[in-house]
Amino acid sequence: MKVVITGGTGFLGLRLARAILKRGELSGASGALEPVDQMVLFDAVTPAERPEGLDDRVEIVSGDISDRALVTSLISGESLSVFHFASVVSSGAEQDFDLAMKVNLDGGINVLEAARAAPGLPRVVFTSSFAVFGGSALPDTVTDATKITPMTTYGMTKVVNELLLNDYTRKDFLDGRGARLPTVIIRPGKPNKAASGFASGVFREPLSGIDFDLPVKNETRMAVSGYRTIVEGILALHEAESDAVGDDRSVNLPSITLTVAEMIEGLKRVAGDRPLGQINSALDPTIQAICDGWPGRGQSPRADALGLPADKGLDSIIRAYIEDYADAKRRPAAADQVITW
Amino acid sequence: MKVVITGGTGFLGLRLARAILKRGELSGASGALEPVDQMVLFDAVTPAERPEGLDDRVEIVSGDISDRALVTSLISGESLSVFHFASVVSSGAEQDFDLAMKVNLDGGINVLEAARAAPGLPRVVFTSSFAVFGGSALPDTVTDATKITPMTTYGMTKVVNELLLNDYTRKDFLDGRGARLPTVIIRPGKPNKAASGFASGVFREPLSGIDFDLPVKNETRMAVSGYRTIVEGILALHEAESDAVGDDRSVNLPSITLTVAEMIEGLKRVAGDRPLGQINSALDPTIQAICDGWPGRGQSPRADALGLPADKGLDSIIRAYIEDYADAKRRPAAADQVITW
Repeated sequence: MKVVITGGTGFLGLRLARAILKRGELSGASGALEPVDQMVLFDAVTPAERPEGLDDRVEIVSGDISDRALVTSLISGESLSVFHFASVVSSGAEQDFDLAMKVNLDGGINVLEAARAAPGLPRVVFTSSFAVFGGSALPDTVTDATKITPMTTYGMTKVVNELLLNDYTRKDFLDGRGARLPTVIIRPGKPNKAASGFASGVFREPLSGIDFDLPVKNETRMAVSGYRTIVEGILALHEAESDAVGDDRSVNLPSITLTVAEMIEGLKRVAGDRPLGQINSALDPTIQAICDGWPGRGQSPRADALGLPADKGLDSIIRAYIEDYADAKRRPAAADQVITW
Repeated sequence: MKVVITGGTGFLGLRLARAILKRGELSGASGALEPVDQMVLFDAVTPAERPEGLDDRVEIVSGDISDRALVTSLISGESLSVFHFASVVSSGAEQDFDLAMKVNLDGGINVLEAARAAPGLPRVVFTSSFAVFGGSALPDTVTDATKITPMTTYGMTKVVNELLLNDYTRKDFLDGRGARLPTVIIRPGKPNKAASGFASGVFREPLSGIDFDLPVKNETRMAVSGYRTIVEGILALHEAESDAVGDDRSVNLPSITLTVAEMIEGLKRVAGDRPLGQINSALDPTIQAICDGWPGRGQSPRADALGLPADKGLDSIIRAYIEDYADAKRRPAAADQVITW
């Protein structure tokens, strides 16, 4: 089978690609396991060098996801699965509404239309986000049943894609599944402009011996998950039986809720006698306000029922990062360092 | 000020147009009342004859709402309000997904983009629908806080427009408000193909002396509202102060819940000694299944708080229909008879 990952050279896209290559097979449209013999990583830019760990099944293609013809040519073939990660991120979408509409909305429709045009019912896994939740009526704890009223353009385009995914699936155009991601930690590489970036930076920078300016208060709470768990969750959602997903195709992925104080305690606990950069308070009212608008706690009963994995706690998340990146001899590949869309 | 009504020669569009012309003024973007000196009724087809009750302030324009340039040329000007009614209806959208995407989604974005491009913050009132509610997890009673998971393409496109309206408003591109309509009764003219059509037909046909084949069971429940109340509600939502609407811009309009048996009792009660056509049971499992998927009861706390009007009961709805249509000497104008999109 052929696997297409949009946003495929971003941090999560590459990790997913490597996990699929290692696994070697995925459930095809019929439900039977099929060998993955072709993979396309589609992204906005071509990485300066070919990322590590990709064998000759993998083709890297760069281009504009709002180009319907290009997307249709890539998302095609007899036996196909699609992971649609490509997206303008939260701060980018706030800064450039029209770009977000073009990439996230037109791009999303292009992916769905291409999968619709392909033979059979390709599985399409869409990465949504806890950023769909927002607004003055938002409860502190969000569940799969919480009304979705995003207060960012990023979140709005994510939930529109969720709704389209539902309808394309209901119409038997494709077999869509949506994974609503909490804040994913610990992202390697350079800081990005996401308002949630501190939730990775507060670990990553001190572990690299670099001082970190913390833009939010210690009592700020976030629903987070480790990247290993996220990638396994996305794969498990792809593998789930379609009927088990039900008519509302997007689920909250499991998350754990941590205060910033708990993050810092965990860092010190796991780091042991490693030298750590200092964490300095440098409140940024804009980032604080954005974080205060996010749900503090997420429940994921539907993902739990589907058997999607959950983090057992913070310590294993930090240990995984140390193993994968902080202690790794190699520098993270260039493409790991930024979110490219 | 200039008022543009898309779907303006449809049943509700025309009733709204006449109500605005009679009122003579609406709140402008600044909140101050301004005289309505220009009105455009935009629709997919030109009515065979000019509908009654429209004075020379009114221009009727026909065209394709997916034509961005045309929509932009109509929705323009210094002082502007827009009522966006144009839509492929429920059964039409199920039959032609691509047309629904073009008219309801592309068309909706065209309206929003045109209003965004106009000076100031035009008020844009969008008519959404209780058809946004659906799915296996739907509670029996829907409120403003119910999670929206439509199971029709029509409902999906409506909620996407609601979400876009929220974001265009949040970004200060325009001042949007959405009215989520229950089933509107009693529609005059010929039966249309809407699955909810029986809720008008069960009154209209017998009152015209015509036998009526009832496609659903007597215990079927529907959330309904009379068209006079709906038009007044849409106007009241336009007039509401923007801050009072809040960050989630669409509200459930008030409705009353009736079983089909209660509809028939009410008809007999109000009709008195008028001759009535017979109502015959002619179960249509498809229509029954669609109706069973709709919410049986709607609550509208936010519309109530905004002071939007509610029906006092069924009898006044039936009396209004008799006054407006059944007893009216004139036949309803041609354009009243069908939903044109």
